[in-house]
Amino acid sequence: MSRSANRRQENHKISRELFVLTYGALVAQLCKDYQQDEDVNKCLDDMGYNIGIRLVEDFLARSAVKKCRNYSETADIIAQVAFKRYLGVTPSVTCTKWNEFSLILDKNPLVDFVEELPAGRSSLCFCGLLCGAIRGALEMVNLAAEVTFIHDSLKGDEVTEIGITFLKKVEDKKKKKNK
Amino acid sequence: MSRSANRRQENHKISRELFVLTYGALVAQLCKDYQQDEDVNKCLDDMGYNIGIRLVEDFLARSAVKKCRNYSETADIIAQVAFKRYLGVTPSVTCTKWNEFSLILDKNPLVDFVEELPAGRSSLCFCGLLCGAIRGALEMVNLAAEVTFIHDSLKGDEVTEIGITFLKKVEDKKKKKNK
Repeated sequence: MSRSANRRQENHKISRELFVLTYGALVAQLCKDYQQDEDVNKCLDDMGYNIGIRLVEDFLARSAVKKCRNYSETADIIAQVAFKRYLGVTPSVTCTKWNEFSLILDKNPLVDFVEELPAGRSSLCFCGLLCGAIRGALEMVNLAAEVTFIHDSLKGDEVTEIGITFLKKVEDKKKKKNK
Repeated sequence: MSRSANRRQENHKISRELFVLTYGALVAQLCKDYQQDEDVNKCLDDMGYNIGIRLVEDFLARSAVKKCRNYSETADIIAQVAFKRYLGVTPSVTCTKWNEFSLILDKNPLVDFVEELPAGRSSLCFCGLLCGAIRGALEMVNLAAEVTFIHDSLKGDEVTEIGITFLKKVEDKKKKKNK
């Protein structure tokens, strides 16, 4: 690798610990702001959505990913390229229905410093920002999806599982509307 | 590098873009929460402090840094080891007085996606979390310091300059108190 390529790569990598602690501070702040877990979850999902729609540009510009031919390819790209690139981990992918996929993380990197959910916050979706980010990024490539946590290691589950259900394509919806 | 060492290193690196956008969401949330810039700045500094006191453990455990002999060595370690490790950049260090140092960043990685301060937020110290983190980390190794932004590229300055003023050692203070 040339020195300049090396520098470029270095410049875009940071330590995960700083991110994880900063993310924890964000969730803690939202817990101060909103009494209801649902409101915190909604806020994290919205923030994630806004991050996803910006991050996807960076993703498409930097990765040499071609247009996916089907949902299965899309799920694989999310797990193997996007998660790898942005979080340094690669979840395994399972297909549960033709349009439903699960990303399974044996270890969730976002909860490195978190042992359990804050007291009285049992419905908190601590890593909800991730779901929003996936949803936002997919929408920018004309794929509507519902993205939710199915299992969460912070809630005592053995793994963390993110479910992606692909809905009708955004383009299709638009076409229908324009008819 | 062995495969396991390589994997360990990979697992602790993430893409800076995700961090920068998440940090931006945190600052935006605080701007919603607090009308006064000073309150946002105080909050970012406090959050940074709490992150610093936790991050320093990780830093000491992972880096082979020995006890610094003087303030100059400490400033160099912050710039060349800590910044490099946690933010992927290495600021240059200048000494302005025997106990005062500046870390100068030609490009501040935290403002990659930020073109200017939000409207009506001219006193906002956008990257204040960094100062708090340095202060917190130093305090954990018994060094009291004031850490502030001297120049800020978001406020039209050419570079970003973080000033560190080392104060009396915490140990000295304690000794004095116990007398």
